[in-house]
Amino acid sequence: MKLTIERAALLKSLTHVQSVVERRNTIPILSNILLRAENDRLSLTATDMDLEVVETTTAEVSEAGATTTPAHTLYEIVRKLPEGSQVQIALEPGAGRLTLAAGRSKFNLAVLPVDDFPVMSGGDLPVTFGLAAAELRGLIDRAEFAISTEETRYYLNGIYFHATDAEGTKILRAVATDGHRLARVEAPLPDGAENMPGVIVPRKTVGELRKLIEETGEAVDIALSDTKIRFGFGNAILTSKLIDGTFPDYERVIPSGNDKTLDIECKAFADAVDRVSAISIEKSRAVKVVLSGNTLTLSASSPEHGTASEELEINYDAEDIEIGFNSRYLLDIAKQVKGDTLNLLMSDGSSPTILRDTDDLSALYVLMPMRV
Amino acid sequence: MKLTIERAALLKSLTHVQSVVERRNTIPILSNILLRAENDRLSLTATDMDLEVVETTTAEVSEAGATTTPAHTLYEIVRKLPEGSQVQIALEPGAGRLTLAAGRSKFNLAVLPVDDFPVMSGGDLPVTFGLAAAELRGLIDRAEFAISTEETRYYLNGIYFHATDAEGTKILRAVATDGHRLARVEAPLPDGAENMPGVIVPRKTVGELRKLIEETGEAVDIALSDTKIRFGFGNAILTSKLIDGTFPDYERVIPSGNDKTLDIECKAFADAVDRVSAISIEKSRAVKVVLSGNTLTLSASSPEHGTASEELEINYDAEDIEIGFNSRYLLDIAKQVKGDTLNLLMSDGSSPTILRDTDDLSALYVLMPMRV
Repeated sequence: MKLTIERAALLKSLTHVQSVVERRNTIPILSNILLRAENDRLSLTATDMDLEVVETTTAEVSEAGATTTPAHTLYEIVRKLPEGSQVQIALEPGAGRLTLAAGRSKFNLAVLPVDDFPVMSGGDLPVTFGLAAAELRGLIDRAEFAISTEETRYYLNGIYFHATDAEGTKILRAVATDGHRLARVEAPLPDGAENMPGVIVPRKTVGELRKLIEETGEAVDIALSDTKIRFGFGNAILTSKLIDGTFPDYERVIPSGNDKTLDIECKAFADAVDRVSAISIEKSRAVKVVLSGNTLTLSASSPEHGTASEELEINYDAEDIEIGFNSRYLLDIAKQVKGDTLNLLMSDGSSPTILRDTDDLSALYVLMPMRV
Repeated sequence: MKLTIERAALLKSLTHVQSVVERRNTIPILSNILLRAENDRLSLTATDMDLEVVETTTAEVSEAGATTTPAHTLYEIVRKLPEGSQVQIALEPGAGRLTLAAGRSKFNLAVLPVDDFPVMSGGDLPVTFGLAAAELRGLIDRAEFAISTEETRYYLNGIYFHATDAEGTKILRAVATDGHRLARVEAPLPDGAENMPGVIVPRKTVGELRKLIEETGEAVDIALSDTKIRFGFGNAILTSKLIDGTFPDYERVIPSGNDKTLDIECKAFADAVDRVSAISIEKSRAVKVVLSGNTLTLSASSPEHGTASEELEINYDAEDIEIGFNSRYLLDIAKQVKGDTLNLLMSDGSSPTILRDTDDLSALYVLMPMRV
């Protein structure tokens, strides 16, 4: 293997793939990335056995070949090379080291056999469709915060994507919940996705995917079975196992009878929640919301620090209500609202509340109440 | 106590004092700051028993008084209030709570008795002098990185300031060392400091002091005894205990017979050290420097990752030398060099090396070699 590549191109690809590689690995080869050079292309593959990213970039390949070398070390080196460097990479047949040279810097990197590198076989991915990058980004961004981090509820450790019908329109839904809050985000169902199975995409995959979408403006090619999913970008392909579990029947927790509705200026509300929560108990972060006439009162208290309250003027003509929320969860939802107004649809102090961006009904959030 | 104050003024003072207050305190009053209002001034005092900062700011005081309240909570609240807010603070006589109101936000904060708040008596501080803020900043910035964090060597956990003579000129010296590297920085001795005792200013004090200097362009008033030091700024006074210990005879570790001298472009050298160290063993960060003829070769190796080397052209006519350094320490020193050229003055591979900024001889650094 022998090639020359611009530092900028190599760094860009390495930046994308290296974050897939875990910092601590008991299996040495999982610390490595696979480099494969042929036909004036260099491909870089990183995997953690559940998730694989392959990125291809242009290089001057004078001798085709492949090897594996430590991902983070290679990334550190390339990051520190001077801008504009031409990087020469070579593996002499039989040599146990990969050489990397740029200017007067020279590195010999440990290698491990290509054959030991676990390659994720895509297998049969019968469902294929394209999704605009902006749509996919929108689905992820508004659902990701609600993914559970509780390992025992592994089936909640991802975003559930599935095709469904809403009022006669075919839609693609992304749902995430940790049992305390839920996000349900919709996009028009792309052609070809009609028969997709419901799939749970793991959190780490969602994160890596999000980074790759950031840099593309085009449609993302999606292919999936009920065990794997693949996202194709111009130069990168991300393949991931899906979470093998059953996502709960989330429709059951979205209340349908909530009749007390309130539109509130989202930023003013979020700022007030943030202020009042400065005094709430560190652990629960509870704030109390009281609606009465045209006043919304936010309050919090902690035996150690004192009490806080703030009033906001509102237009509210339903029955008085008193309800507690985790302020952090309220703020997480408020952050997703791009329009000016947040709509709250409540029932009573012990039932879940629905929150929506009044300017964008494609997302719906459910927040469980807290006892305060 | 009753006063009105602009949020910006209150926030600025709180930002300065709150960082003195430790996050975890077994003595509740140490989580509080002391607020004292009188004569249209509000003073804020924070202490950790070793270090005290008092800052005074303008306020409309309608009723003089004093109390103590949780520092971090107050800071969080004020930080989150809208810009331009007028903050009303009041403590009704007999009431167990401090009230803070701004717009439609209202907070009741827990208080503890003023009499329980530990006030640091300055005591007699016989030595007083003024030091230009830029001089003090220069002394701190170039010495701070070398302060030891080893608690057992408590006498190295600060910067040693003392008056001395160098080639017939009276100077103020700041010295810090952790046994692996040493920084010795000098400034002209201010009038009045001739008889100052040598004092060790603790690391935390150095850090808080540095923040206060940042915002002043004027001279800092310094007063000290052999147990305490006080720094006076326009609106703030920092008083600190000194480390009760003997700073080692650092002159002994500054070699005088080093005869192999090398001037090297500092940035190119530092960048090369940084690159090569990408491959060095995580724990030791060792890099090897070899000087031979007009070539400096940097190298590093790790059994896990491989080897790295880089060559730099130099002008060097002394004997060949091979010496190892901790790359992180080398980079720390290189960062202090504001000029273009770093001077290394070496003896051999097992003796300490002297490093200097050729454009600024007021600082001298000593670096111990590592076996490589």
